[in-house]
Amino acid sequence: MSTNQNVWLVSPQKISFETPLSLENGEVLPRFDLMVETYGELNAEKSNAVLICHALSGHHHVAGRHSAEDTHAGWWDNMVGPGKPIDTDRFFVVGLNNLGGCHGSTGPLSPNPRSGHNYGADFPMITVKDWVRSQALLADYFGINRWAAVVGGSLGGMQALQWAIDFPERVSHALVIASAPKLSTQNIAFNDVARQAILTDPDFYGGHYERFNKIPKRGLKIARMMGHITYLAEEGLGKKFGRELRNDRYQYGYDIEFEVESYLRYQGDKFAGSFDANTYLLMTKALDYFDPAAEYGHDLQKALSHTQAKFFVASFSSDWRFSPERSHELVKALIAARKPVQYIEIESNHGHDAFLMEDEPYIRAVRTYMNNIDKELRA
Amino acid sequence: MSTNQNVWLVSPQKISFETPLSLENGEVLPRFDLMVETYGELNAEKSNAVLICHALSGHHHVAGRHSAEDTHAGWWDNMVGPGKPIDTDRFFVVGLNNLGGCHGSTGPLSPNPRSGHNYGADFPMITVKDWVRSQALLADYFGINRWAAVVGGSLGGMQALQWAIDFPERVSHALVIASAPKLSTQNIAFNDVARQAILTDPDFYGGHYERFNKIPKRGLKIARMMGHITYLAEEGLGKKFGRELRNDRYQYGYDIEFEVESYLRYQGDKFAGSFDANTYLLMTKALDYFDPAAEYGHDLQKALSHTQAKFFVASFSSDWRFSPERSHELVKALIAARKPVQYIEIESNHGHDAFLMEDEPYIRAVRTYMNNIDKELRA
Repeated sequence: MSTNQNVWLVSPQKISFETPLSLENGEVLPRFDLMVETYGELNAEKSNAVLICHALSGHHHVAGRHSAEDTHAGWWDNMVGPGKPIDTDRFFVVGLNNLGGCHGSTGPLSPNPRSGHNYGADFPMITVKDWVRSQALLADYFGINRWAAVVGGSLGGMQALQWAIDFPERVSHALVIASAPKLSTQNIAFNDVARQAILTDPDFYGGHYERFNKIPKRGLKIARMMGHITYLAEEGLGKKFGRELRNDRYQYGYDIEFEVESYLRYQGDKFAGSFDANTYLLMTKALDYFDPAAEYGHDLQKALSHTQAKFFVASFSSDWRFSPERSHELVKALIAARKPVQYIEIESNHGHDAFLMEDEPYIRAVRTYMNNIDKELRA
Repeated sequence: MSTNQNVWLVSPQKISFETPLSLENGEVLPRFDLMVETYGELNAEKSNAVLICHALSGHHHVAGRHSAEDTHAGWWDNMVGPGKPIDTDRFFVVGLNNLGGCHGSTGPLSPNPRSGHNYGADFPMITVKDWVRSQALLADYFGINRWAAVVGGSLGGMQALQWAIDFPERVSHALVIASAPKLSTQNIAFNDVARQAILTDPDFYGGHYERFNKIPKRGLKIARMMGHITYLAEEGLGKKFGRELRNDRYQYGYDIEFEVESYLRYQGDKFAGSFDANTYLLMTKALDYFDPAAEYGHDLQKALSHTQAKFFVASFSSDWRFSPERSHELVKALIAARKPVQYIEIESNHGHDAFLMEDEPYIRAVRTYMNNIDKELRA
């Protein structure tokens, strides 16, 4: 990492794990790679490490740029970096692409040692618990015994929560942002529609589209367009696009008429051209399956009773995918279990995507919380 | 119409209009048929007629059964019939399949006199205003100068509203239920995803799938599954299905696991096997285009200023597709325009679909309102 012409340059690394990993579904990954980026320096006590867990379409490239010419910074560049709320001048920050991902970690696009082909549809179903176990092996690799913080939004927040439950002694702070202790029926329903769009695309070929040189772009596009609507709020969408027309009058056809259509189709096409369909399917199933209370008789308070982490929980007023009420469930269970928790509900019209945005009270709250962790470490 | 073994039997009729109809998009329909059902008797003054306007997937078969063996009654059988809130013992009730529909009225499945083929994708784009004009011709056919009431939910409510604006002297009462004065950005966005699912289905053939003996079932299924989620509320979905599994444990595959998936896929398949894709596309565009205030400088109060109807407006607490706030816009504009309006906001966990359900305060409110219309007629 170096600063060059005011551009903060970062580089990914691939870390290989040559021991088999047993998965929740009963299968075993004989070996795996994790694509990782780290920012900042691990201190001598190895006490200042922060793990960033990504959401559905995220990856290891959390912050900074890969070259001076790079037009896009990492997906959480407003939150992570030198002098940012998650300050890489003080913390050693680790971002990774999760198992099953399509950005370099072992997943459907990786060779299946058993078949010689890439895994494709044969890549095993991964759960949030599996991710957390693979991330624990990553912590071991870095010699990190205990994370100063595990941080994530949405599906990333679920990983932070699962970390606190499964490895209580290895997490000092869990930051669970715009998340939920499990999906709602409606969440599952939307995920199933997205999957059906992909699974029924004639170019899906039972998940082995790569062998046929095809990509189920139509299905991926539809899944993403629909998903995108659910990440945004009517408040924000309406403010940004309203009923604005591309031309000054109705065209009475199926080409783009309203500006919101242009935006959505562009998002859908971009995603369909860059994201792997099998990974998308796996991620949505991991979301559906996530239910850490299930192992504890469906009692969330009980699931949390052995956690040692302090919790930071944040939700956004216009997030209807993981509404504030879903965060309240977690906060209430934490309070009932007598665990330390700070909760902030942020007024925002950015919907679920707010966790990636820059609503000032949100950024300030994370900064303050992280500063306090830094103070704890120095105390 | 006759009562037979306690089954209320009804029959559809096809009514032909052999004069050209000019449409808002500039095209002309040389002729058209409307499939119609009527219930009850038109009184001598022809003053007791009620028009029922259907929503996206509705049709002329509003109530009753077509035979004693018929397993399904009409789509609003709980609201319309002898002794029902819209009482066919007192009112002459007219249901129709709208132009562009796929249940017998002239639409994409009808022969195009210009080409000899069925219209398919060449059927002209229809607007709510066009529907209202065709319905006015239907009123003329029956000799109905003025409807006692025009009634509709959702897209049907938009027709009732447009009737009151475009033919002020021909509507005594407009019942606008679970509707909105225009779609929101989010509404338009969901419609575009539904259309993209159909338009990109390889079996769509540019809308001429009929000529290829194909049906774009995959796209229709996805569109309907997604639409269905938006018609329901999390409250109702959660109560009905929760996170219930079909088997007692996770299957780690893409077959049906959660009961809500089973329900949604069934709904999608049923719809895809029975509804015409071109009609679906047309209906969603009619929704997008609806904006009666646009002709009046985007001033809804002005659009309503010449209406003569009394208004009944109803909304449902958990309807997030056409939320109570959308009805408030209409009610406020009516009040500002000094028009008579009764408004009821019904607590319901049925979401948008509540307008088809039997929440008791809703049924009672419609019954009371219709009884008062009946009293007015007899006064």
